Amino acid sequence: MPRLSRDDCERLDSTDALGAFRNRFELPGGIVYLDGNSLGALPAGTRRRLDDLLREQWGNDLIRSWNRHDWIGMPRRIGAKIARLIGADDDEVIVADSTSINLFKLLAAALRLRPKRKVIVSERGNFPTDLYIIQGLISLLDQGHELRLVDADELPSALDAEVAALLLTQVDYRCGRLHDLTAMTRQARTNGILTLWDLSHSAGAMPIELNAAGADMAVGCGYKYLNGGPGAPAYLFIARRHQGDVQPAIAGWMGHAAPFEFAPDYRPAPGIERHLAGTPPVLGLAALEVGVDLLLDADLHLVREKSRRLGDLCLRLVEQECAAFGVERACPRDSALRGSQVAFRHPQGYAITQALIAKGVIGDFRAPDILRFGFAPLYLRYVDVWDAVAALHRVMRNKAWDRPEFKHKASVT
Amino acid sequence: MPRLSRDDCERLDSTDALGAFRNRFELPGGIVYLDGNSLGALPAGTRRRLDDLLREQWGNDLIRSWNRHDWIGMPRRIGAKIARLIGADDDEVIVADSTSINLFKLLAAALRLRPKRKVIVSERGNFPTDLYIIQGLISLLDQGHELRLVDADELPSALDAEVAALLLTQVDYRCGRLHDLTAMTRQARTNGILTLWDLSHSAGAMPIELNAAGADMAVGCGYKYLNGGPGAPAYLFIARRHQGDVQPAIAGWMGHAAPFEFAPDYRPAPGIERHLAGTPPVLGLAALEVGVDLLLDADLHLVREKSRRLGDLCLRLVEQECAAFGVERACPRDSALRGSQVAFRHPQGYAITQALIAKGVIGDFRAPDILRFGFAPLYLRYVDVWDAVAALHRVMRNKAWDRPEFKHKASVT
Repeated sequence: MPRLSRDDCERLDSTDALGAFRNRFELPGGIVYLDGNSLGALPAGTRRRLDDLLREQWGNDLIRSWNRHDWIGMPRRIGAKIARLIGADDDEVIVADSTSINLFKLLAAALRLRPKRKVIVSERGNFPTDLYIIQGLISLLDQGHELRLVDADELPSALDAEVAALLLTQVDYRCGRLHDLTAMTRQARTNGILTLWDLSHSAGAMPIELNAAGADMAVGCGYKYLNGGPGAPAYLFIARRHQGDVQPAIAGWMGHAAPFEFAPDYRPAPGIERHLAGTPPVLGLAALEVGVDLLLDADLHLVREKSRRLGDLCLRLVEQECAAFGVERACPRDSALRGSQVAFRHPQGYAITQALIAKGVIGDFRAPDILRFGFAPLYLRYVDVWDAVAALHRVMRNKAWDRPEFKHKASVT
Repeated sequence: MPRLSRDDCERLDSTDALGAFRNRFELPGGIVYLDGNSLGALPAGTRRRLDDLLREQWGNDLIRSWNRHDWIGMPRRIGAKIARLIGADDDEVIVADSTSINLFKLLAAALRLRPKRKVIVSERGNFPTDLYIIQGLISLLDQGHELRLVDADELPSALDAEVAALLLTQVDYRCGRLHDLTAMTRQARTNGILTLWDLSHSAGAMPIELNAAGADMAVGCGYKYLNGGPGAPAYLFIARRHQGDVQPAIAGWMGHAAPFEFAPDYRPAPGIERHLAGTPPVLGLAALEVGVDLLLDADLHLVREKSRRLGDLCLRLVEQECAAFGVERACPRDSALRGSQVAFRHPQGYAITQALIAKGVIGDFRAPDILRFGFAPLYLRYVDVWDAVAALHRVMRNKAWDRPEFKHKASVT
């Protein structure tokens, strides 16, 4: 393969159909941000929206804003917008709580829909909160449920008639491997197993077709590719065919059929709203809506195409520039099998990540030895990838990672 | 009693030790806001704080802000501040999720601490979400638990040896009646019953001494007297003596002893942090912190004293100005038995509330016939109460409520 130059990358940017989206974010100068898969960047409209929310709505209209500015409708309205990103219908998605809480709600619901089956299947390498929530619920219920953890290649044989629910994250948070959501969902359904997909690491970076695949339930987070801000509210999806059958485990007043009747007995709202619990977090919802609106202006097929190209470029450049330094690919080479991130393995992964951050290239580290680079196609350029790999090359060549301050682990990376 | 005039109220304001706090809020002109018990007003510092959070922290420092600006420490830091408002120690309170979710977590914890007892006692008139959460948990667990609902005066006789937990809201959301938290907690403890207090309608409006009373658990909301903004994050309290014994029902990654080790097995954090679940909602937390900081500058004994006076003034003025119109007191007359709100009953309560709002006096209505006026002593003046009652007088005298547009119920009031 011919060597790539920075000019080649500039040429790719000049014809990028998504190039104009970069101006719709407030990005700091001198930084290459490869962590949009962990915290998405700040959309240009968010500050204005929040200032209006604070000044006009909360400050001036006060309690009246629940009606006047439809605060009360935000979970449903923004849910309907997210539905368009994940192949669901308007009334199948609602914004509420955090991903962890929503996993709890939906897993509890799934187990009640399959009362005779006692096994929950997930992947050994799933994101920890997904596994912890399963463990916590099993312990709480004390009804003899069991978590069956397998590796990805063992999944097909694990899906037997004892299994109530299959809980998978579509894109592996470490290695970036992408599950075939459609095939896996179909196999689960064939065996009467409910699927619960965690879309946190995929939604917004690729088209997702939950209903076309026949998926039962899903959750996802608002602060990664949806650019909703740190700790943004999360969302949940329940296919319409299940909605009437599921009694919420967490029966809060916002999920009541008529919350403002203040009746003493819980009566669930007819549809997806019954999975609301407390008062909607309006500040977080407003910021999330700006991020989601921005994404709705983009063609997700173009987003996916660019995401694959950015990843391919990164792999090729690391091979070209850093092969001599023991930086080993730890993600699928084939972009069709990969989410919007790549991963490399190196014994000094943590220190290398810190040395890169010191040079303005922000990726992250995942224990024990994974360097992770995410690509948010709406604001990342091909030259950014070139610059990042050039920085990695310098860090490796000069052993710039070999300094005590890069080896001390902070609480969050 | 001599008739009170507006001048008398102005004199009370001129010597009000808390008078200067009003300038620390952004309040709309021409409005008397008697709904701070539902949504607190906007503190003057909140817009600046949020703009800095968006621009400098999220926008510029991006993912690094989790360490650099201690986002990761916010639940604990703000929890420790709220602890000072409710008579708890620093490490006994954490900010997380919503009141409803926190009720679920703590009630589940309480039931696990009392495995042989199957009864949960609460009040018939408790805030609905408290009751719904109990009902939902009982149904989820399917372990033969029972909700015993009684009226306030029947509580003492309901607290027998079958009872695992007593869940009460300190101030009744409708009539404003204030429970004796200390006496009720003591009686419950004598019978081996765990207390779970909902402080949503009291914290920030009066001193609360959870530890002095021997309370076991508590929750509360951030958007009423704490002025944290619409749908602000809530908090939870667990007395230190229980913290090591409680396995969280919702076992999320932020409650793990070492979340960034990404270990596959859940191991709870040693203390109160184990009750965190998902990623902290940073925008909401930042706004909440501004409100809490403001309140920490005030002497809660002075706040309580003014709150009682505002309520007494309102009752006296309504009696003086509106006795002829069938507006009936529906709250305790004795301010020692009342939270920071008063209530009146009238068959046209809803329409009267709407007519008052049209005149710029914002209170609220609670079914079936309750007009509710709340007093947030940090920004409410005695003349505001005078003006509100004068408006009520005009509405009643002119039957201004008798218009079709005031009788149509909106979704939220």
